[in-house]
Amino acid sequence: MSKKRVLIVGGVAGGASCAARVRRLYEECEIVIYEMGPYVSFANCGLPYFIGDVIVEEDKLLVATPALFESRFNIRVCTDTQVLSIDKENQSITVRDLKTDVQRLEHYDALVLSTGSQSVWPDIAGLDLPGVHVLRTIPDSRQIRSELKNIQRAVVMGAGYLGLELAENLIKRDVQVTVLQYSEQVMSSLDQEMATYVAKHLMKHGIDLRLSCKTTEIAQNKDGSLQIMLESGEQVTVDAVMISVGVKPRAELAIQAGLDIGAYGGIRVNEYLQTSDPSIWAVGDVVEVKNIITDEWQLFPMAGPANKQGRLAATDIVRKKMSTIPSVPYRGIQGTTVCGVFGLTVATTGVNEKILKNCTSIEYEKVYLHPSNHVGYYPGASPIHIKLLYDARNGKILGAQALGESGVARRIDVIAAFLQMGGTVYDLEEAELCYAPQFGATKDPVNLAGMIAANHLRGNHPLAKWEQLVESHAQVTEEQDDIIQMLSLIMDDPFAQAQLVDVRTEAEFQRKHIPQVVNIPLDSLRERLHELSQEREIWVVCGVGQRAYNATRILQQHGFQVRNLSGGMQTYAAYED
Amino acid sequence: MSKKRVLIVGGVAGGASCAARVRRLYEECEIVIYEMGPYVSFANCGLPYFIGDVIVEEDKLLVATPALFESRFNIRVCTDTQVLSIDKENQSITVRDLKTDVQRLEHYDALVLSTGSQSVWPDIAGLDLPGVHVLRTIPDSRQIRSELKNIQRAVVMGAGYLGLELAENLIKRDVQVTVLQYSEQVMSSLDQEMATYVAKHLMKHGIDLRLSCKTTEIAQNKDGSLQIMLESGEQVTVDAVMISVGVKPRAELAIQAGLDIGAYGGIRVNEYLQTSDPSIWAVGDVVEVKNIITDEWQLFPMAGPANKQGRLAATDIVRKKMSTIPSVPYRGIQGTTVCGVFGLTVATTGVNEKILKNCTSIEYEKVYLHPSNHVGYYPGASPIHIKLLYDARNGKILGAQALGESGVARRIDVIAAFLQMGGTVYDLEEAELCYAPQFGATKDPVNLAGMIAANHLRGNHPLAKWEQLVESHAQVTEEQDDIIQMLSLIMDDPFAQAQLVDVRTEAEFQRKHIPQVVNIPLDSLRERLHELSQEREIWVVCGVGQRAYNATRILQQHGFQVRNLSGGMQTYAAYED
Repeated sequence: MSKKRVLIVGGVAGGASCAARVRRLYEECEIVIYEMGPYVSFANCGLPYFIGDVIVEEDKLLVATPALFESRFNIRVCTDTQVLSIDKENQSITVRDLKTDVQRLEHYDALVLSTGSQSVWPDIAGLDLPGVHVLRTIPDSRQIRSELKNIQRAVVMGAGYLGLELAENLIKRDVQVTVLQYSEQVMSSLDQEMATYVAKHLMKHGIDLRLSCKTTEIAQNKDGSLQIMLESGEQVTVDAVMISVGVKPRAELAIQAGLDIGAYGGIRVNEYLQTSDPSIWAVGDVVEVKNIITDEWQLFPMAGPANKQGRLAATDIVRKKMSTIPSVPYRGIQGTTVCGVFGLTVATTGVNEKILKNCTSIEYEKVYLHPSNHVGYYPGASPIHIKLLYDARNGKILGAQALGESGVARRIDVIAAFLQMGGTVYDLEEAELCYAPQFGATKDPVNLAGMIAANHLRGNHPLAKWEQLVESHAQVTEEQDDIIQMLSLIMDDPFAQAQLVDVRTEAEFQRKHIPQVVNIPLDSLRERLHELSQEREIWVVCGVGQRAYNATRILQQHGFQVRNLSGGMQTYAAYED
Repeated sequence: MSKKRVLIVGGVAGGASCAARVRRLYEECEIVIYEMGPYVSFANCGLPYFIGDVIVEEDKLLVATPALFESRFNIRVCTDTQVLSIDKENQSITVRDLKTDVQRLEHYDALVLSTGSQSVWPDIAGLDLPGVHVLRTIPDSRQIRSELKNIQRAVVMGAGYLGLELAENLIKRDVQVTVLQYSEQVMSSLDQEMATYVAKHLMKHGIDLRLSCKTTEIAQNKDGSLQIMLESGEQVTVDAVMISVGVKPRAELAIQAGLDIGAYGGIRVNEYLQTSDPSIWAVGDVVEVKNIITDEWQLFPMAGPANKQGRLAATDIVRKKMSTIPSVPYRGIQGTTVCGVFGLTVATTGVNEKILKNCTSIEYEKVYLHPSNHVGYYPGASPIHIKLLYDARNGKILGAQALGESGVARRIDVIAAFLQMGGTVYDLEEAELCYAPQFGATKDPVNLAGMIAANHLRGNHPLAKWEQLVESHAQVTEEQDDIIQMLSLIMDDPFAQAQLVDVRTEAEFQRKHIPQVVNIPLDSLRERLHELSQEREIWVVCGVGQRAYNATRILQQHGFQVRNLSGGMQTYAAYED
C-alpha cells in the first residue's frame, strides 16, 4: 500500500508549522509543501525592519530552507509552484511549476490550505505607477530597499500596525514620511481615545500624520515623483507610496472548490480547522476564526494564531487520516496584539469598546489608569496608559489596551492569561506578580487595574463617563459659549448633569483644568464639604484617578452622590483631542 | 458615643496600606499608626539601591509622610513610638514614646500587628564589632553610606535576594565583594541546577562567591579591618561585613499576648488575616501564610503580599467592627519572586522541586527550555532559561523558575497568572500572547514550555532524568574509571541504563559532549537507525532539547524506547557544575 499523502498549499507560518507537526506525529506519510514564491517559512513580520536596516542580512529572514525540511523532516518543498485548482471528489490538486510552466495532478489524503492573505488595494487611480509598493514578501522588501537611495519623501497609506512599523523604518532610513489614514484614528485595535496617545507620539517623532484623510488619485509628475491627491483638495508630493490599508484572505482556491466561505471572505473551519470538506483543512490568515469573547466570526491575520492553528490542524489530520491520537480543539482567538513604534509599545488583548458597543448581549464597564512601569523611586519609571474593559455583571475581563515605553507587553500578556482562563477583575486584584523596585510595584499595574474595577463593582467606587462630559462640554464651548457664560453668572452650574470637582493642588489646577470645574484639593476636602451641594451628583477628577478615588470615598460616606472620572486629567487629555 | 478606634502597630508595607484602606472604607473611626522607627511607609526594597547610588536622594525612599497621612487620610502617625504590650481582655495596648520615655495606655476596637521581620544573626562571635552591619532601615543605609569611603573590601554573608542586591550595589561603589553562603547554592527560591547560572553570572561580574562556606568568627585586626574565619581554615580580610542570612518574624508582642504562633515563629491568622483573638489582625512579614500549592504554612516576607494582606485585613476590620461590606478572603501565597543582579533577572512562581520532593501528595514532572526572549532574526535576542514544574497526573502548573537578561519577569508573571487560575500546561500551550519580532515569537517561551510539557503528558515526548545520568556518570568517572574503560572495550555500553545519543552536528559535538555518548546528527538519523539497539532505552540529547525532541519522535515511531534529556547540553552544563 502506498503512503498517505498530506499536501500543504502555502509554506509560511501556518503551513510550515502544520507540516513539521504532521511529521513529528507520523513518520510514515508523504508530506509536500507548495509555495508560490521563492521561499518557504520566511519571517514576514521582520520585513519592515529589513527595510529599516534593523535587520541587515536578508538570510536572517529565512527561518527554514527547503533543504532543511527535506533532511530534518522528510518533507518535500516545491517553491515557485502554484496550485491551480482542487478536485474534492478525486482528492487531487492541479499544480503548475512556475519555472517550467508544466502542470501536473497530485493526489492527496489530506489537503491543508495555508494560502495566507494579500494586500487590499484601495480603489484609486494610479496604483500601477512605478514607486507604488506593497510589502508582503522578501522580493517586495528587496525592491523597496533597492529604491531607497532615490526616496526622500514617502507616503504610507494606512496607519495599522504594519503601516506604522514601515513608517518608523522609513524614518530610520532618513525618509520624510506622511501617513494617510482613511479613518479618524490610527491602529484600529485600539479605542479612539487610546489611539490619540499613539498619534501624538508619531507626530513627535516626525511623522506627518493625516487622519480622516481620503486619497482620490495618485499621479506621476514630470520629474518622476508621485502626486497624491486628497479629497480635501490638498496634495502631497513624494517619491514613493507604500500601500498598507489592510489584508484580505487569499481564498480563491477554496472558493473555486466550493468550500464554505464566511461573511468576511475567509474559509469557514470547525474547531479542528477542518473545512466543509472532511479531507481539507485550512489555517492562518485565510480562515475566519471565532472570537472567544463575542462568539462571532472574524478575520485575525496574525502569525501567532496561524502557527498554533497549523499545529492543531496537523494533530487532527493525523488523528482522522492515519493514527489514533487524542483530539485537541482550537479555542478561537482572543485578540492579543502588540506593536512597537518609536519606542512606544502598544498592546491589546480581548475586545475593545468599539466592539462591545455593538455587542448587545454584553453589559460592560471600563476603567482607565496610568501607573508607572515600576516604583517611582527607582530611576527610569515611565507611565503605562491602561484601559480595562470588564463585564458589569460579574467582573469578567473582556479586554485591555495598554501603551507606554516599558513593561507594556508584560501587563497585557498577564491580562491575556487571566482572560483566557475566564478570569475576573477580582483575580487581577489579588494576582501575585513579580515585584522588586526595578520590575514593578507592590501593587502592580495589573493589580491596580483589578482593584479600581473591583472597587467599582463592589459599589465603593462609582465611575463617571468621560464621553458624557466631553460631549456636553463640546456642545457648550462650540455652540453656546456666550449663553453659558451668562448662565454661569446666575446659576451655580449650567449643566444638568453634575458638579465638577478637581481635587488636585491649586498649582496643578492652574496649569490646566476642565472648564466649569471647581478646585477643592483633596487634603482640604473634609473641611470644605459645605461648599458642595447634596442635590446634584458630584463628578471628581484629579491627575490620574487615585486622589479622586480617595475623594469619592470621603464624599460617598458623607452622603453625597459622587462619581470618579476614571483616569483623571490624563484620560481627559486623551478624550479632548 | 465615641468613635471606634483602629490601632496599627508598624507603619511600613502592610500597616500603611491597611490604615489607608480602613479610612477609605470607613470615615467615622479613629486610626493611629505606631512606628518604632523615625519613618512610616518607607521603601525598604529600595535600600540596596540607595547604597549603590542608583537611588541618590534619600527623600525618594519616603513613600508617605506622617503629615500626608494626617491631611489626606485623617490618620495619626506616632513615629519613634514603641508598643510594649497588648491587653487582650481590655482591648488596650501600652505604648512608650521613645523620645520622652513616657508610657500610656491606648484602647482599641481593632488592633493590627504589622511588626514585620528582623534580621537573623548567625551564631558566630564578633557580630558586635564596628563595621558589621545589617540593612533593614533608612538609618542603617545612611550609616553604611557614611562608611563607604573607608570600605575597599566587604563580605556579604548570605546569598539571598537582598544579599546579592547589596553585593551588586557595593560593587557599583567600587568595593571588592566576597559573598559567603552557608548552603551549596545561591537564592534558595531556585533549585540548585538553576542557581548555578546565577553563581556563574556573579563570578563573571567580579563577586568572590564561596558556597558551602561556614563562618566561625569575625575578629578585628589592629588596623581596624575585620578578619573572617571560615570553618575550612581560610580567612578573609575586609573592611566591612554585611549580614544578610535571612529574616524572622518580629512576633514578640503577639507571643507575649498569647496569640497563636505557628511552627516558623510567625503569627497564625485565618483567611481574613485575623489572629486567634477576634479583635486583633496581623499582616506582612510577621504572619505565616498558607501556600496555595502545598497547602502548608510558611513564611513569605515579601512586600507585595504584605500590601495585599493589609488591604484585606482592612476590609475585614470594617466588616466585623463597623459597617456591612462584603467579605474578601486572602487566597494565600503562591511564591512569586523576582530579583535583578548585574543585568540578570531571576524570577520564580509557585514551588520549586526541592519543595515538591518533600511533598508526597504531589506527583510532579519537569521540563527545561532555553528559548530566546524574542525571535532570533531581530537584533538583541538573549536566552531565557526556564524550568517548569507540573502535576504529572493532570498537567496543573506547580511552579516555574526563569532567568535571563530580558523578558524574564514577563514570562513568570504570565505563568503566575495561569497558576493562580488553576491552569495547566495545556493552557500555556494555547496561550495567545503578545507577538511581534521585538517582543517575542509566534511560539512564545510560555507556549513552548506548555507545548513541551503537554507533548510529554500526551505520551509523544518521554523525558529522561538528568539526575540519574549525572549521578551514574559521577560514580563512574570518580571511582571506577579504569574498570569502565576496560568494560567499554568488551561491551557496547557499560551502563545498565541507556544508550546515549547526541543528535547535534559533528562540529557541535566536538566542542563538548557528555561522556560515553554517540553522535548521530538529527538530519542523518533516519538513515542510521540500524546503528541503534532496540534492546535498551535510548536517551537523546541536543543543544537545548528541540532537535532531540524531533529525534525522539522519529525513534519512538520506529519502535525504539526513547527519552529526551530535557533542555539539552544547556541543562547538562547546569547539572554538571
